[in-house]
Amino acid sequence: MPDTMTDTGNWGRVADLLAEEGADWAVLSGFDSVCFATGHISGIETGPSPFGGGPALAFVGRDGTVGLVCSNTEGGQTAHETIAYPGFANAVTDQLANYRAATAEMIARLGVSGRIAVEHLSLPAAVAALLPGTQTGIDTPLARLRAVKTAPELARLRFCAEVAAEGQRAARALSRPGSVEIENFGHARAVMEAMADARVALAGEYITGVERTATLGLPLNARILADGDPVLCDLAPRVAGYWGDSCASYVVGGHPSAEYEAMYAAARDTLTLAIATLRPGLRVCDFDANLRAHMAGRGFGYPHHSGHGIGTSVHEWPRLVPDETAAFEQDMVIMVEPGSYVPGLGGLRCEYMLHVTATGAEVMAHFEMTCK
Amino acid sequence: MPDTMTDTGNWGRVADLLAEEGADWAVLSGFDSVCFATGHISGIETGPSPFGGGPALAFVGRDGTVGLVCSNTEGGQTAHETIAYPGFANAVTDQLANYRAATAEMIARLGVSGRIAVEHLSLPAAVAALLPGTQTGIDTPLARLRAVKTAPELARLRFCAEVAAEGQRAARALSRPGSVEIENFGHARAVMEAMADARVALAGEYITGVERTATLGLPLNARILADGDPVLCDLAPRVAGYWGDSCASYVVGGHPSAEYEAMYAAARDTLTLAIATLRPGLRVCDFDANLRAHMAGRGFGYPHHSGHGIGTSVHEWPRLVPDETAAFEQDMVIMVEPGSYVPGLGGLRCEYMLHVTATGAEVMAHFEMTCK
Repeated sequence: MPDTMTDTGNWGRVADLLAEEGADWAVLSGFDSVCFATGHISGIETGPSPFGGGPALAFVGRDGTVGLVCSNTEGGQTAHETIAYPGFANAVTDQLANYRAATAEMIARLGVSGRIAVEHLSLPAAVAALLPGTQTGIDTPLARLRAVKTAPELARLRFCAEVAAEGQRAARALSRPGSVEIENFGHARAVMEAMADARVALAGEYITGVERTATLGLPLNARILADGDPVLCDLAPRVAGYWGDSCASYVVGGHPSAEYEAMYAAARDTLTLAIATLRPGLRVCDFDANLRAHMAGRGFGYPHHSGHGIGTSVHEWPRLVPDETAAFEQDMVIMVEPGSYVPGLGGLRCEYMLHVTATGAEVMAHFEMTCK
Repeated sequence: MPDTMTDTGNWGRVADLLAEEGADWAVLSGFDSVCFATGHISGIETGPSPFGGGPALAFVGRDGTVGLVCSNTEGGQTAHETIAYPGFANAVTDQLANYRAATAEMIARLGVSGRIAVEHLSLPAAVAALLPGTQTGIDTPLARLRAVKTAPELARLRFCAEVAAEGQRAARALSRPGSVEIENFGHARAVMEAMADARVALAGEYITGVERTATLGLPLNARILADGDPVLCDLAPRVAGYWGDSCASYVVGGHPSAEYEAMYAAARDTLTLAIATLRPGLRVCDFDANLRAHMAGRGFGYPHHSGHGIGTSVHEWPRLVPDETAAFEQDMVIMVEPGSYVPGLGGLRCEYMLHVTATGAEVMAHFEMTCK
């Protein structure tokens, strides 16, 4: 992984945001915002930890002071001032009481007061009750700040993109007749974890067969692949706190029908159009409309977003939807994922991770984008 | 999976608890408690959903009324009255506003009022602000209620134990010289997912080598296994909302040193002692002390708990620690996991899932428990 993965997060940018917003402190409680602001990575793969009293908290002052409260099972990851309270102990332990006490101690130690920016999406009631000042929501401005990436963040995201691409190569090789849908997904995950040299949380899906790929949102299962089956493989690994994302679609055995191939070409060409047209200053709604019109002109379409931002959360602002009027900015990282889902024919989606450069867009990691 | 996995949760037991606790309503926000009370399963593998405004909420009235608030990406799982608010939409969507509105609507629809039992460990501030009555914590009594399992819960947990055991068999077969630590973990996971016919969240670890197994809490990595390496394989899959757990330890190639074998025998015999002595009425602290004394008599010991309850959370009350004075009860499901960790020699742990019967304890699923 790049050396830049050892940095201590974007606390300076958060401090600047507080000044803009007229707030004195930020108390961040989302696993994604805490990672963004401090570099601290909370494990998420097994849900909220039974060894914690609540989510890790990042404190950022307008003057750049930073503090972190987390369970002792998560402590010591960053150079920031940290209180790692007893979440795990070889004794009866009241994790919630310990979490509250550590939070109160950090508030006192840092002198947190005044106008306190919180994340309404994730703030625990137990923490809200301890905050001494006025609370104001920072969810929206923080989402917009996070959308534009720094150079170290781009390096991290590029590695995430490469891990996803490696997973795509593995999944394509595994997609043989007689193989098992959910086993292929698991083995592709193992390849990504070996490349990341660590466990990765994994969003996405690996769905096979005509009827299953034509239906959005199905869970994976133990279906056995047959020659000619469409495969829709969407792999989004979280590597060292940041996410990659990707989607490839193809047919087992490599001999698609003419109808499937036409549908595939529509999505693939729409992705090519996206790469050619994405640039700073373009409004999301205009970009989105252009992609949908291109698909419609080929006789296909998709009922979901055209894509989304990505960073310490797998789906972040901006979402590429018809009514998002914001404009793209340089150094956003944007997923674009045109697709089509037709009963009797199957479903597919083509998705690359794109870096918005000063003048256009670049694919952050390539993998094979053909249906054969 | 057993047919009993389609039930609608333990809402009746929660209603009875409310009567005992003098509360009128429960508003549950932990993914584990929501699943316990209603059968609704929130995905946890990728952290809090970007398509939600907060965790799914279960409302249970003292009279047995049940309501559920969740994102439309999670809706429709149970027969309970549900408000599935727009978390995902092909438009700009304010998930938090939608979550708040759905919660307020459910409060009004059910007439939630009076003394409201909440989980301080997981209650979002956004929800706390909407509750119209007095709030009282239910974390501790609910943890104790959940510790004793019903027949349908035991059937679910037995299947989870069998999935974990299948994972153990796969991991042992994969533990060959030249194989990669994190790949073996991933491939064992794929086997469990195929058996579960679904993705499983997976807690635990698969750690190899003398120095790595002797150190608690290390992350998995891409280490290559060599002949003679100790392997410590702890697999805890979440299957349909409930968890299994297990740990096996052995040596690659099957030729342990005499010192390792003696350490292994100490842990294995302590687990055997646990199975022979666990029964209703026995105090946790006395059981824990007996296991530690047995290990110490063989010259070994462990710095962690002797085990823990398991259910809709992978670690639940009671934790088997020296100062837990509560007694075991019939139909608890208890993990017991004696181990030893010695620099220069390696680390190991032996763990079965035990059902506390009327008169003793039974192993819920066997897998090979030898070090060779």
